[in-house]
Amino acid sequence: MADVWQSAMDHAVAVARKAGQVVREAVQSVHKEAVMVKSSSVDLVTQTDQKVEKLIIQSVKEKFPKHSFIGEESVAAGEVCTLTDSPTWIIDPIDGTTNFVHTYPYVGVSIGFSVNKQVEFGVVYSCLQDQMFTARRGKGAFCNGEPLQVSNQQDIHQALIAAEFGSNRDVQTVEKIFSSLKKVVSIPVHGVRGAGSAAINMCLVASGCVEAYYEIGIHVWDIAAGSLIVSEAGGVLMDVAGGPLDLMSRRVLAANNQKVAERLVKEIDAFRPIRDDAPLTE
Amino acid sequence: MADVWQSAMDHAVAVARKAGQVVREAVQSVHKEAVMVKSSSVDLVTQTDQKVEKLIIQSVKEKFPKHSFIGEESVAAGEVCTLTDSPTWIIDPIDGTTNFVHTYPYVGVSIGFSVNKQVEFGVVYSCLQDQMFTARRGKGAFCNGEPLQVSNQQDIHQALIAAEFGSNRDVQTVEKIFSSLKKVVSIPVHGVRGAGSAAINMCLVASGCVEAYYEIGIHVWDIAAGSLIVSEAGGVLMDVAGGPLDLMSRRVLAANNQKVAERLVKEIDAFRPIRDDAPLTE
Repeated sequence: MADVWQSAMDHAVAVARKAGQVVREAVQSVHKEAVMVKSSSVDLVTQTDQKVEKLIIQSVKEKFPKHSFIGEESVAAGEVCTLTDSPTWIIDPIDGTTNFVHTYPYVGVSIGFSVNKQVEFGVVYSCLQDQMFTARRGKGAFCNGEPLQVSNQQDIHQALIAAEFGSNRDVQTVEKIFSSLKKVVSIPVHGVRGAGSAAINMCLVASGCVEAYYEIGIHVWDIAAGSLIVSEAGGVLMDVAGGPLDLMSRRVLAANNQKVAERLVKEIDAFRPIRDDAPLTE
Repeated sequence: MADVWQSAMDHAVAVARKAGQVVREAVQSVHKEAVMVKSSSVDLVTQTDQKVEKLIIQSVKEKFPKHSFIGEESVAAGEVCTLTDSPTWIIDPIDGTTNFVHTYPYVGVSIGFSVNKQVEFGVVYSCLQDQMFTARRGKGAFCNGEPLQVSNQQDIHQALIAAEFGSNRDVQTVEKIFSSLKKVVSIPVHGVRGAGSAAINMCLVASGCVEAYYEIGIHVWDIAAGSLIVSEAGGVLMDVAGGPLDLMSRRVLAANNQKVAERLVKEIDAFRPIRDDAPLTE
């Protein structure tokens, strides 16, 4: 079976690179492209988003016709979002759509692959930087073929943290996000950064550029690939309230080690968004 | 006289590239280097910082022995920080020292040059990205020779804003910074990013990747070069409370246009840090 997943991973890398090229060309040529509003004015979806997801899914279906899919755009179009035991491709065609629209330089193609609800490989292609992040379960994490290793920093006061304000502008949500972040800054930590892409934030943890990243409100397609890249680089994943990461919970905390992660848990107001696998209500 | 400044600018570009190479090699080889504490645990200065400033100043002094200097490390070592009418090189050897220490990918060498208190040229070398940003007064702004243009977005709700939490962890300062940023997010804007380098945030405005950037607490060496890069790319500079930018005031607002800038002014709690040119007290 291992060989099957390796060939799937090779395919994922190839299709991510192809998808990234489409994204890169779109960013370069359509410097200001028309966007249409999805759930709110800050959550943009572009024609490229949909085009790239189709490109990836069609390419994978040809080679692996029995596999399942969870894709950001497919779910937005009404498809179910349930993680089963089937081999499942979990796809975010453009992670960092706001960045894409603004040509801010962090835009990722994220492809995770799970079997029995466990991520077997993850591929994140930071296409404007031409950085291909990959991880295969039990075989390490890499960027452009170079092995990745999380930071060895144990002291939270020396830590750089990645965090985001998210796209939800509901007053109570904004209040909770700011309150948590203020407590994190005041630990104090070295500083806070945010790439504007969950997948790339996780790659920054894996690369040792930041010690940790947390966010509430992300989706399974934002974090499936990145979660394996972090753990294969020696990092830890957990829920923002501590305990195991639940990929469908829309909450994630990725860190270089348990000590840094547990210190952050104390400061985060761990509210619960509607789960990715919640039944649809009319 | 114009020729004199052009030759100074050519020298600035050459020395920034040389300095950037030293910084890049330090980041690459000393992945975790010893750091010593300056004013607080989040404001780090490394050996490389001091080495690079010396490299730049010595190189400029050989060619322009009568020029004046304001450099981050020289001021930290007790030299005066006053902007006079003399031709003055305003230098930040490593803008984004925290990024440098963490190998976070935005690290800039910033060299501004003023005459009669007016910036004549600015050079910011984003050395890990190998991006050379340059501007000469009245002659446009460029990145690696390609002309830069700010975003043409007029609608603040469609704007991406760069902001930072700074390095001050004083409770009241943190409160003011968070309060302003929460109001900015809630306008609502598209999103907030922060590169962790004032000079590079300003280059992101000039490049059209973000519509605006504001910060209180920065220093003249962080913004002198970037301010000209923004204005030569068609953007505007002002004080965070509106009115003209004062390079020594430790407050800056750079935007793609007047409309976006003035909308942000309404949300910013414009507190006053001690000025860069304040008399030293014993």
